[in-house]
Amino acid sequence: MDLFEAISKRHSYRGPYRDQPVPRNDLRRIVQAGLQAPSGRNMQTTTFVIADEPALVRSIGAMHASNVAVQQAKAFIACVVDVRPEAVYEGHHFQVEDCAAAVENMLLAVTALGYAGVWIDGWLRGEDRAGRIGKLLGLPEGKMIRVLLPVGIPAETWPQKEKRPFAERAWFNRFGAAD
Amino acid sequence: MDLFEAISKRHSYRGPYRDQPVPRNDLRRIVQAGLQAPSGRNMQTTTFVIADEPALVRSIGAMHASNVAVQQAKAFIACVVDVRPEAVYEGHHFQVEDCAAAVENMLLAVTALGYAGVWIDGWLRGEDRAGRIGKLLGLPEGKMIRVLLPVGIPAETWPQKEKRPFAERAWFNRFGAAD
Repeated sequence: MDLFEAISKRHSYRGPYRDQPVPRNDLRRIVQAGLQAPSGRNMQTTTFVIADEPALVRSIGAMHASNVAVQQAKAFIACVVDVRPEAVYEGHHFQVEDCAAAVENMLLAVTALGYAGVWIDGWLRGEDRAGRIGKLLGLPEGKMIRVLLPVGIPAETWPQKEKRPFAERAWFNRFGAAD
Repeated sequence: MDLFEAISKRHSYRGPYRDQPVPRNDLRRIVQAGLQAPSGRNMQTTTFVIADEPALVRSIGAMHASNVAVQQAKAFIACVVDVRPEAVYEGHHFQVEDCAAAVENMLLAVTALGYAGVWIDGWLRGEDRAGRIGKLLGLPEGKMIRVLLPVGIPAETWPQKEKRPFAERAWFNRFGAAD
């Protein structure tokens, strides 16, 4: 799929999935897109656990009370970072950015391959959900799940949220300038 | 350009640019890709200032002592966020993630349109560079530049940094598991 088409079609899908598994080859392609994302000083701080074992996937899905995509996911991709990231540049670390760039690449790959999903972050932070899912995925001490993506073939057309237009969010040479 | 090709070709370019301006239509397409990125609760917290006025671009470029792409940029795209972001979900904000996802979309668009650039973040945080560039771009109180992208047509082939292979960074069902 053309890059700009993938960017336009990507959207946050919280609906039901068809009852078809996601082939490992496609999951590998999606995660490979994440591995190729930029990272601060090329430190490649992010790692990924792909859950596709049905009982494991169901255990994770059962934790969400309302998000149908999470409940019915055929696979999950977890983006893993350090609990206490080391600084890599003048006292700063970039693991949040590293993970976000990888997740965006993966969401575009999800879209291009005919799947749909949604970036799950805030929900993970409540009720130690990131920690509980981390245990299910065998994360070692010092590692934590930062973002979780449910993946599957969408069973419904889902409304794409509107974005404010260019003129309200972007300007040439001066913040808020007329074009 | 195909999505997966753009993901594979995107790399951090710090080399010289050809002496050709970047047409506004291309700058708009690149920033539009950023506007279409996901954001936490679809709050669309990021805004963008595109510098393409030659004297302004040179003033920014002159601030960098070593990065030739910054020094020779034909345009800059600044991703702007709040200095004190408001929480949008259970006490959390996602402006760092919002900006990173937008920047990744823009870097892919930069690549697909035949340009090259590099994600500038850490450098901005030293010596109040983000603040000084923010003044040049007319940012109001409460807004700050989080990421800056130089844009231009690359004049050289630049080495693409190696990424560690899938097997070292991704696993099925259990962190660190054999495939």
